[in-house]
Amino acid sequence: MRPLYTDLRVRNLDRSIRFYRTLGFRPTLRGRTSIGEFAQLEHPRGHFTIELNRFPRGSSVYEPYRKGSEMDHFGFWVDDVDQWVRTLRSVGGKVKVAPYDGQVVVPPRPPFSGRAAYVSGPDGIWIELMGPPRGR
Amino acid sequence: MRPLYTDLRVRNLDRSIRFYRTLGFRPTLRGRTSIGEFAQLEHPRGHFTIELNRFPRGSSVYEPYRKGSEMDHFGFWVDDVDQWVRTLRSVGGKVKVAPYDGQVVVPPRPPFSGRAAYVSGPDGIWIELMGPPRGR
Repeated sequence: MRPLYTDLRVRNLDRSIRFYRTLGFRPTLRGRTSIGEFAQLEHPRGHFTIELNRFPRGSSVYEPYRKGSEMDHFGFWVDDVDQWVRTLRSVGGKVKVAPYDGQVVVPPRPPFSGRAAYVSGPDGIWIELMGPPRGR
Repeated sequence: MRPLYTDLRVRNLDRSIRFYRTLGFRPTLRGRTSIGEFAQLEHPRGHFTIELNRFPRGSSVYEPYRKGSEMDHFGFWVDDVDQWVRTLRSVGGKVKVAPYDGQVVVPPRPPFSGRAAYVSGPDGIWIELMGPPRGR
C-alpha cells in the first residue's frame, strides 16, 4: 500500500497546470483516455504528486462542475507569505484570507504563530500559505 | 515552497481516522481550535500527509456537507487489489467499481494494464486501488 497522488477534477487543464506549476509542481505525465484528459505533476520538495482530470461534456463520467465541501485546502510552507500571495494573484488566484500574523487556524506543528494567508485556485480549491512571522 | 498536506473536510473525525488508518496512515497530531477539531496523519510510504477537519454546527466556517466534483480520488498502489477491496469494505468503504483487469482509466505510469478498483470512504471520496494483474 503506497500513496500515489491526490486527484482533482478541473475544468481547464492548461489553466490548472499553469497554476500548479507556479506552486513549484513539475508536469511528469499528460495524456488522453476514452473518457477525458489528465496530467500528473510532482513537487520536487515533499514528494507530493497531484493528478488533474478533465472530463469533457459527452464523457461517460461528465458532470456539471459543482464545488463541494470535501476538499478543504492544500497546505504549503513558504518563506514569504506576502510574496507568494502576490505571485498566486498574478496567475489568477483569488485572495480569500489576506496575509495576517498570529495563530493560524490549524497549525502545521504546534505551537505555530507565524504568518498565513488563503488563496483560491482556478476551481475554487484553497491554497493555505504558512510561513514565518513578517520580518523574521 | 514545500507541500505539507492535503486537507479534507469530514463529518466524523473518529470514523475518518479509522478509515485512513486502515489505508496505512498513522496519526501524528490531533487537536481543537476555536472553529473545530482536526487531525493530521502521515503515510510511512510516500511521505504523504493528510489533514482532516471537522467543523461542528455553530463554527464560523460550518456549512452543511455537500459532496462536490473537485476532489476526484486518492490513488494508491497495492499488491492485492481484491484483498484491499475486502479490507476497506470491512471498515465501511463502499465499492464503486469492482475489481477488474485491463487498462485502468488513468494509469500511474503508462503502459499500465493491471488490476484496479474504486472504493469510496466515509465522506464519499474515492480511493483508487491499482495493482498487478490477478495471479501475478
